[in-house]
Amino acid sequence: MKQNVYDDEIFYKSYVELRINSTGLNDVLEIPAFRTLLPEDLTHMEILELGCGFGQSCSWYVSQGAGMVIGIDISEKMIARARQLYQHDKIEYVRLPIEDINFPKEKFDLVLSSLAFHYVADLKNVLERSYHCLKNNGFLIFSQEHPIATAKKVPNGWVKDENGKKMHWILDNYNDEGIRKQNWFIDDVIKYHRTTSSIINVLVETGFKIVRVLEPAAIKEAEMINDDLKEERRRPPFLLIKAQKI
Amino acid sequence: MKQNVYDDEIFYKSYVELRINSTGLNDVLEIPAFRTLLPEDLTHMEILELGCGFGQSCSWYVSQGAGMVIGIDISEKMIARARQLYQHDKIEYVRLPIEDINFPKEKFDLVLSSLAFHYVADLKNVLERSYHCLKNNGFLIFSQEHPIATAKKVPNGWVKDENGKKMHWILDNYNDEGIRKQNWFIDDVIKYHRTTSSIINVLVETGFKIVRVLEPAAIKEAEMINDDLKEERRRPPFLLIKAQKI
Repeated sequence: MKQNVYDDEIFYKSYVELRINSTGLNDVLEIPAFRTLLPEDLTHMEILELGCGFGQSCSWYVSQGAGMVIGIDISEKMIARARQLYQHDKIEYVRLPIEDINFPKEKFDLVLSSLAFHYVADLKNVLERSYHCLKNNGFLIFSQEHPIATAKKVPNGWVKDENGKKMHWILDNYNDEGIRKQNWFIDDVIKYHRTTSSIINVLVETGFKIVRVLEPAAIKEAEMINDDLKEERRRPPFLLIKAQKI
Repeated sequence: MKQNVYDDEIFYKSYVELRINSTGLNDVLEIPAFRTLLPEDLTHMEILELGCGFGQSCSWYVSQGAGMVIGIDISEKMIARARQLYQHDKIEYVRLPIEDINFPKEKFDLVLSSLAFHYVADLKNVLERSYHCLKNNGFLIFSQEHPIATAKKVPNGWVKDENGKKMHWILDNYNDEGIRKQNWFIDDVIKYHRTTSSIINVLVETGFKIVRVLEPAAIKEAEMINDDLKEERRRPPFLLIKAQKI
């Protein structure tokens, strides 16, 4: 079952609005952390992005010197918008579920994926396909919602006091992996909860070496502008992993 | 500052009682998980145990064929009791803070540590000393309290309803690493909260390869005997890591 929630009309419109007006967690927290994991020099690199969305990242990689970027997304609307907004000779957008990638062996220097793997039912399959098409010593770098954020079966986030102040984060069901249904713009968006240890172990079993793991807080500059971001220190919203094909 | 809470009279007596009457989490959850990380065959292995306590584990490693075990503990009382209970030709007990170990290069096949590292202020120092005295391809295997369990600055565990039923785990302060004071038999037992990512990253920076990570729930047999143990699935009490010197 490959979920394509981004082609739902309501979801798509809401998501576009969110990302256009964004000063959200993606921009001040996930993207800066993700970029610290990239090689310093992207010149001539061949990059595969799994779940490329609008294509902003693909475009950014090219601006940093990447030789070629292939962006994969299951959503027709996303791919159409990416082609409209971020067309470039060095970028190829392909509409495809990331579970179905089937590239030649050792084609890419980097396989990157931002906030897509928590939608994938069979992580091992995606990791194996990523491993296959990575060059030796190439890197898989991905982010996903943190297991602490996806754990609870009935997602309800923070406990707040009568004034709306966040008291603490609600954690539960951590070791019960599997489907989590959430309402995000529309009902029943399906995510898959996996523990941090099982994500790391499946990477290791696939042949990857763990290079670095991040559970980032917001960057200081962002915290200074927006005091609310300090709250993100209280529980990690994202998990990022850099792994190497060895 | 090296904490020696185990030589506190009250703490020591309470701890001895706890471990003697134990059907607790150590026995049904931490120890079984820890043993799955050990090499299948311990025959002739030279083992260093950091924080050996009473010496039960040292004794068990010898029973499994280990060639030599050195058990280190900061507590005079613990070492005295270990010598009394688990004396053996192949075991040497040394009273020493684990932060001060200084063994010859490449002496041990395994460096093991059970529920001691959360008492250590400078984890990098202990990892470097462990790395130094491990043979090439040797393993460091350790357990500690899970960062999800140590995170909160005012430790208060579960939210319970009026009947004492556990509603959810309280998580907070995750990204604020540092000292956590807890009352465990006596006031102000000091533990050090570190995030999962920073523990993994300091291992990698020290030169270790991550082999396996566990956030164990209780074994099924134990859950069948003691229904309460199912609650441990709701948040992980322990983090275990197997790392290899490469």
